[in-house]
Amino acid sequence: MAEAVDYKYVGSRPVRPDGADKVTGRAQYGADINLPNQIYGRILRSTVAHARIKSIDTSAAEAMDGVFAVVTGADFPVGEHGEIGGEGGGDVADVAQNVMARDKVYYHGHAVAAVAARSQSIADAALAAIKVEYEKLPLVLNVLDAMKDDSPLLNAQCFTKGLAEKPTKPSNIANVMTLARGNLDEGFAAADVIHESEHVVPMSHQGYIEPHACTATVNEDGRATVWLCTQGHFDTRAQTAKILGKSLADLRFIATEIGGGFGGKTVVYLEPVAVKLAEKSGRPVKMAMTREEVFRATGPTSGSVARIKVGAKKDGTITAAQAWIAMEAGAFAGAPIGPGAMAIFAPYKLEHFKVETFDVLVNKPKVAAYRAPGAPQTMHCMEVALNEIAIKLGMDPIDLRLKNAAEEGTQAPYGPKFPVIGFKECLEAAKKHPNYTRPVPAGAGRGVAAGFWFNVGMQSSAEVYVNDDGTVNVVEGSPDIGGSRASMCIMAAETLGVPYDRVRAMVGDTDTTGFCNVTGGSRTTFATGMAVIQACEDIIAQCKQRAAATWGIDADQVDWKDGQVVPKPGINAELKPLTLAQLAAKAARTGGPIAGRASLNAQGAGPSFAVNIADLAVDRETGKVDVLAFTCIQDAGTAIHPSYVEGQYQGGAAQGLGWALNEEYIFNKDGIMENAGFLDYRVPVASDLPMIDTVIIEVPNPSHPYGVRGVGETGIVAPLATCTNAMRDAVGFLIPDLPLSPPRVLAAIDAHG
Amino acid sequence: MAEAVDYKYVGSRPVRPDGADKVTGRAQYGADINLPNQIYGRILRSTVAHARIKSIDTSAAEAMDGVFAVVTGADFPVGEHGEIGGEGGGDVADVAQNVMARDKVYYHGHAVAAVAARSQSIADAALAAIKVEYEKLPLVLNVLDAMKDDSPLLNAQCFTKGLAEKPTKPSNIANVMTLARGNLDEGFAAADVIHESEHVVPMSHQGYIEPHACTATVNEDGRATVWLCTQGHFDTRAQTAKILGKSLADLRFIATEIGGGFGGKTVVYLEPVAVKLAEKSGRPVKMAMTREEVFRATGPTSGSVARIKVGAKKDGTITAAQAWIAMEAGAFAGAPIGPGAMAIFAPYKLEHFKVETFDVLVNKPKVAAYRAPGAPQTMHCMEVALNEIAIKLGMDPIDLRLKNAAEEGTQAPYGPKFPVIGFKECLEAAKKHPNYTRPVPAGAGRGVAAGFWFNVGMQSSAEVYVNDDGTVNVVEGSPDIGGSRASMCIMAAETLGVPYDRVRAMVGDTDTTGFCNVTGGSRTTFATGMAVIQACEDIIAQCKQRAAATWGIDADQVDWKDGQVVPKPGINAELKPLTLAQLAAKAARTGGPIAGRASLNAQGAGPSFAVNIADLAVDRETGKVDVLAFTCIQDAGTAIHPSYVEGQYQGGAAQGLGWALNEEYIFNKDGIMENAGFLDYRVPVASDLPMIDTVIIEVPNPSHPYGVRGVGETGIVAPLATCTNAMRDAVGFLIPDLPLSPPRVLAAIDAHG
Repeated sequence: MAEAVDYKYVGSRPVRPDGADKVTGRAQYGADINLPNQIYGRILRSTVAHARIKSIDTSAAEAMDGVFAVVTGADFPVGEHGEIGGEGGGDVADVAQNVMARDKVYYHGHAVAAVAARSQSIADAALAAIKVEYEKLPLVLNVLDAMKDDSPLLNAQCFTKGLAEKPTKPSNIANVMTLARGNLDEGFAAADVIHESEHVVPMSHQGYIEPHACTATVNEDGRATVWLCTQGHFDTRAQTAKILGKSLADLRFIATEIGGGFGGKTVVYLEPVAVKLAEKSGRPVKMAMTREEVFRATGPTSGSVARIKVGAKKDGTITAAQAWIAMEAGAFAGAPIGPGAMAIFAPYKLEHFKVETFDVLVNKPKVAAYRAPGAPQTMHCMEVALNEIAIKLGMDPIDLRLKNAAEEGTQAPYGPKFPVIGFKECLEAAKKHPNYTRPVPAGAGRGVAAGFWFNVGMQSSAEVYVNDDGTVNVVEGSPDIGGSRASMCIMAAETLGVPYDRVRAMVGDTDTTGFCNVTGGSRTTFATGMAVIQACEDIIAQCKQRAAATWGIDADQVDWKDGQVVPKPGINAELKPLTLAQLAAKAARTGGPIAGRASLNAQGAGPSFAVNIADLAVDRETGKVDVLAFTCIQDAGTAIHPSYVEGQYQGGAAQGLGWALNEEYIFNKDGIMENAGFLDYRVPVASDLPMIDTVIIEVPNPSHPYGVRGVGETGIVAPLATCTNAMRDAVGFLIPDLPLSPPRVLAAIDAHG
Repeated sequence: MAEAVDYKYVGSRPVRPDGADKVTGRAQYGADINLPNQIYGRILRSTVAHARIKSIDTSAAEAMDGVFAVVTGADFPVGEHGEIGGEGGGDVADVAQNVMARDKVYYHGHAVAAVAARSQSIADAALAAIKVEYEKLPLVLNVLDAMKDDSPLLNAQCFTKGLAEKPTKPSNIANVMTLARGNLDEGFAAADVIHESEHVVPMSHQGYIEPHACTATVNEDGRATVWLCTQGHFDTRAQTAKILGKSLADLRFIATEIGGGFGGKTVVYLEPVAVKLAEKSGRPVKMAMTREEVFRATGPTSGSVARIKVGAKKDGTITAAQAWIAMEAGAFAGAPIGPGAMAIFAPYKLEHFKVETFDVLVNKPKVAAYRAPGAPQTMHCMEVALNEIAIKLGMDPIDLRLKNAAEEGTQAPYGPKFPVIGFKECLEAAKKHPNYTRPVPAGAGRGVAAGFWFNVGMQSSAEVYVNDDGTVNVVEGSPDIGGSRASMCIMAAETLGVPYDRVRAMVGDTDTTGFCNVTGGSRTTFATGMAVIQACEDIIAQCKQRAAATWGIDADQVDWKDGQVVPKPGINAELKPLTLAQLAAKAARTGGPIAGRASLNAQGAGPSFAVNIADLAVDRETGKVDVLAFTCIQDAGTAIHPSYVEGQYQGGAAQGLGWALNEEYIFNKDGIMENAGFLDYRVPVASDLPMIDTVIIEVPNPSHPYGVRGVGETGIVAPLATCTNAMRDAVGFLIPDLPLSPPRVLAAIDAHG
């Protein structure tokens, strides 16, 4: 581990700046915005999973008292094709169709019309009055079925991309991604042991507590203001602009507080509809989804079927690894096959490997990004395979991973050589952690697995304004999901040498701050933090100039040290250091207000690794699983605010455990989700989980001034395999598929005898 | 006049960007903000004009159902002394006492307590339940009385500032300002004619249509957000911070749309009270004044008594000028004696002059800035005196002024030499204007007079963000009173070479833009405009760098020309020019988002001059005056958006005409204003005025990239003397005092026989 740097504010745990507003209810979330004369928008959703829309008759709805506007797909321009920004995958034209169906519906819950009315109940009554005539089409729900030649096709214009040869006929396989190195035959031939298995990971939802909501108002010049809960108001503005054919400057997007996103709030569902309804009605329109709508028409992440084959020598050296993974895209292309393929083997030095991933259309909701998108699904099979290899070799599973662990200079499976990384440090910390060294409780099983996420850079901006009392306002464009205001304040305080409680940060809207990509990809503390630091450096440069001018010396004769401008050694020793507050108080006389800004496309994101340890107890009568202990050991680079970092580790673990143990979309044969509510779709609640232990490993990222890597996503990756491996230990055999819910576990125990 | 520059957008008249919202009622003014759980604040005002507060009993009010908080002076810290920012004069500690009386009340209407309650009516009932015991003190209302040695004293700690010798006893004269040059005796000895007279100009109100209003909310961390109608949310934030002892970063001030300010919305009245009530009640508090409160406790500008003596030779050369002007401060120091003294002789080359001005406390509301503060009062007597001199010499009054007109290089009476100015251009344009050359209508009189205002610079900031579709968002900190959004968009469009309709400007709040002084001093288009231009230049520099990098050449090998980066002559001719939109589309690949910012303390404000011509008809039976024609000829430097400039000229003229002809504060002997409403305090309405003709003279200010001087204030200066001079022409004798209201005019006609 790199040597610890002595920071003053970085690494401290100040009270969170949004705390008071959140616990008192002052904080405004997506549905908390109310405007004068506001009306309510509701969406009519498809009752069938795959059909041609023969006709939509909205006349009865339009005639209803209290109804102000009705829209259908005909009210929207044909969307321009183009990659949507941010972490979410897909094409804007697809998103446009997902927002409002045109000629076809592709899944049960697909939006087909919308109404704005004086009240929600009038709006709902109006929806009921809209007559849609469907011509049902055959549907396909299973990803393997969808890949077959004779499968019903969702989109006759879909020709597989990513193949060596141009396909001659359409397919539900929208994209293929293949990564390979070396020679598989040679690798497997060198193996002493080989493991092969197939695994199903279910479609699951991000499960954010706050349903999607927005309020839109459009003036008579066509300029719209939209309040929305989003991970990225700039990216959702861009999508909305393209879907509606408006200019970016005519859309002001204001991010409210957000009750969770996890990747699912990077794309638009309601916003273009709300703007269109507001435009048509001349009134502000508020839209908020029900939980049922959230399940049926937003999120989820891809379910997948994965086939894995791994070979190793007796000493644990992996000789070859091969994976084939089909991922559900839902109704439109966009399964996270790229990151999934790139992540699966990333923690290991591999000479021979091949991974093929498939982005497959099925009649389910279009998937969206979900925390480390693609990695949990693909890494599950690899980390389970390694556990099986370790068992076969009688080797400690951490030692097996240490034997093969990637390190600085290892060529990542996706191309570049790794810079300084902290995987080995995580493995070593895991190996000596009390939760690993103590005996496994009687009747329980213990599992370990590794997780990985790239972390990304992307575009960020920040502005920093110094008030003349020396206090500082930071404006960032990154919605604060995991504590960005706190971490920006800490980094600004550290850079400027101003006490933390003199710095305030806020999330600017699309009019009032520079462009920022979504809060996603674990990029915010890294990239937006870098922008904040650079904006502070802009200020420091000005301070040096102003102090030098005040002193009558050259700017290159001064230094910035401990939050003060000081004369360089050898320069007039009688000059007393000047703090930012002192300079701010005289700013009017030295050139005007002190402000700094930075915009960047951040380079040098630092990959992060995690090792998880779980103890699971299994009730052999019911199949119920209790998580007795769970430990997340993860490299943060540098933890700017360790409490938030621990929160991210714990949140990632909680979601991973939910996915591993209980969560899944259950569709009936007609493609209708049967568990579209939190009573039937069981995310873990506090009573389901133990206190999740965390260990923050700090191997600083050399590309970030304070060493930040990013901590939001890696945490969800390892829990899936950790649970499968712990279950293996508990029951003595491999249950390959997830979730490890009571019915599956009981069936497996029963089947195994 | 300097040669006209060929601009693409500067000088055009696009549709105003705030128009649609204002005509449809979407625009949110001070009283339009409503928050959940909001309660209503009302202020209890003194029923006497001068008294010691013996006791305040709020217990009954506090006990009332629906009352959430009651505050008095005891709830506020003792204010720190210090000059308040912006255009308004005075001391923050005085403003603090004006916001809420402590031990004494100084005028009828002075705030003594405040209540926040569930409704306005409950709040009013609670005010009625507060018992205040006053010990009445003798009062003084007349400025000349107040200057006497035996006058009742408002403030025993007030010792006159600005005297040669330190005073030994307190006085109502808070400040004295003297400017002099040459030798008066010598000057007057050289005169062939001398005029002397004394003039009263009444206290008048800014008369903004929108009463003061704000809504404040304070969270449990003590962080406040305040929406308010203000000319400067940064300066009112600073005042509020000092009055409440809060840090600037804990106060977010958001400027709403504003229904007029004219200098009167540069200081706080309600905001610290609203924050305190919100803090005490835990609820958002909305406060809005009635019109009566606006009259009794805000604004006004100083009434004055002026003595003038001017001597001239037969050829019109002014040999000496002397003025003595006492101005009412109201309850606390702050009459605009500085600018008044500096402005009075500014239009003329004078060898010998002296002006003394006095800032005098009287038991009337504390004055605030009002459009060209001080200049209308002081210049009235000088411009009337010149008219009398012209009559004595049988000389055309414009020729008399041309004979003595200041020009580039003339040493201004207040010190520096004038840069390029346009006074002569205005005079010459007036002389040949049809409204001057045509015969005076029968029974009417014609008058002319000159006006002057310094225009100021002060601190401004701006941020400019380029969207990837090439549209541009400008953020300025200057509340838009006279079209700042339009003019900033025009200047940004011109600088960046982007079509005007692709640029949007908005007024940022104190958290989201750099510091900006008030919209006042006619500084906004000049100084904030300069910041916008510099922010655009920041962008241009980045564009040049990015284009050069794209082309693989050095940044100094490219030029910015016609809104495009072009290779310099001689550099690779095959490189095609790149527009901002083209560069913006690829910004992610060339370094990230494109944004610019600038902060400055603007230097080089250009003085502006005006000449007004009025034809007045006087009804000799009733004294009623009809304005038959009014012409404002004024130097704008460069008119960025000529329609707004004309609007400023017309607005200044309308206010000047109101002040000249009708407006005045009428106090009874107890110091109670008897005409505190728009029915009795008559501002001119549309039917009172003719179409006001305007001539925009453009003598560009060399210190501003587009030549801007500032146009907001000069227009109110000349109408006062123009009317007195026209009246002189109509009735044949001088009526020295204002307003020229029917009673005064009739009495003068009757007295004159």
